[in-house]
Amino acid sequence: MKQLEDKIRKEARIFPGNVLNVGSFLNQQIDVPFMMDMGKELARLYQDAKVNKILTVESSGIALAMAVACHMNAKLVFAKKKQTANMDDNVYSAKVYSYTHGLENRIVVSRAFLTPEDRVLIVDDFLAMGEALNGMIELCRQAHAAVAGCGIAIEKGFQPGGDALRKAGIRVESLAIIDRMTENELLFR
Amino acid sequence: MKQLEDKIRKEARIFPGNVLNVGSFLNQQIDVPFMMDMGKELARLYQDAKVNKILTVESSGIALAMAVACHMNAKLVFAKKKQTANMDDNVYSAKVYSYTHGLENRIVVSRAFLTPEDRVLIVDDFLAMGEALNGMIELCRQAHAAVAGCGIAIEKGFQPGGDALRKAGIRVESLAIIDRMTENELLFR
Repeated sequence: MKQLEDKIRKEARIFPGNVLNVGSFLNQQIDVPFMMDMGKELARLYQDAKVNKILTVESSGIALAMAVACHMNAKLVFAKKKQTANMDDNVYSAKVYSYTHGLENRIVVSRAFLTPEDRVLIVDDFLAMGEALNGMIELCRQAHAAVAGCGIAIEKGFQPGGDALRKAGIRVESLAIIDRMTENELLFR
Repeated sequence: MKQLEDKIRKEARIFPGNVLNVGSFLNQQIDVPFMMDMGKELARLYQDAKVNKILTVESSGIALAMAVACHMNAKLVFAKKKQTANMDDNVYSAKVYSYTHGLENRIVVSRAFLTPEDRVLIVDDFLAMGEALNGMIELCRQAHAAVAGCGIAIEKGFQPGGDALRKAGIRVESLAIIDRMTENELLFR
């Protein structure tokens, strides 16, 4: 999506350690009309995929997931992160390692909100190592829900998550894929 | 908002300890068209308040804040919760005690995203003791941003947060105010 690439070039800040800060429009502060446009584009890409539910994980995926759900007439469900290992019989849960924060979270979703009748589009703001997406795919597997694919704003194409998912047969659509990133250079796929 | 009261009566589950579970449509699972209608109603209530920014706190306020921002042509900013006491010179921060989780969080927002030019509508899904709203008002005070008011989905009117804010001169609009709640009874103001 050309407008997203332009916006990244214009507003993103790059820090050492492959950190891309897009807090001015994608998380923390959200450019709402632009977020709605991104949601519309992901909805268009998956228009024939018979999606009835959008799944994301708190909290930075929620705004994009809301925008996609608006344009797909789908319900939105967000998994919660719990650092505690508490298990509840009424939830599905999966482990997700956060490379950003250096800790393992458990993500959980109520069994009532993910069912074998669901055809799910998994949405998140970023894709790098693929930990969060794999966790959400695992939640869908436990629920016997079908995964139509993943819809992402920004994929770090120089990290292995996206390509590993594609090789595993999962459809992944990213609105911008960054193949090289240094403090002086941004190269999109 | 009559539709919200009806939805609470129909779908909410009440647990001991004044816990109102509205996970089927307001948080965890979100009924998106209904959330957009709630956002539209809050936007209508504040239509003359010259709001340019919506402030909420992660994560269950984000979807409603997104809906309000869509209808007000305003930017959306969400404060982040940090359990660590790490302070950063580039953020405003405030302490917020969570009665639900029994712990104190620090909420932070980047100084770049809250400024003296902003006229802010603070949005959250729930209002009970008012801890989160008071924390966000404190963030606005630190940034010298004006607070136009607060927009809430569900206020627990039998807890003191909302009325204390109103007494302090803050405009608070709640789409549903519950004045009495037992496992057998729900009374709206």
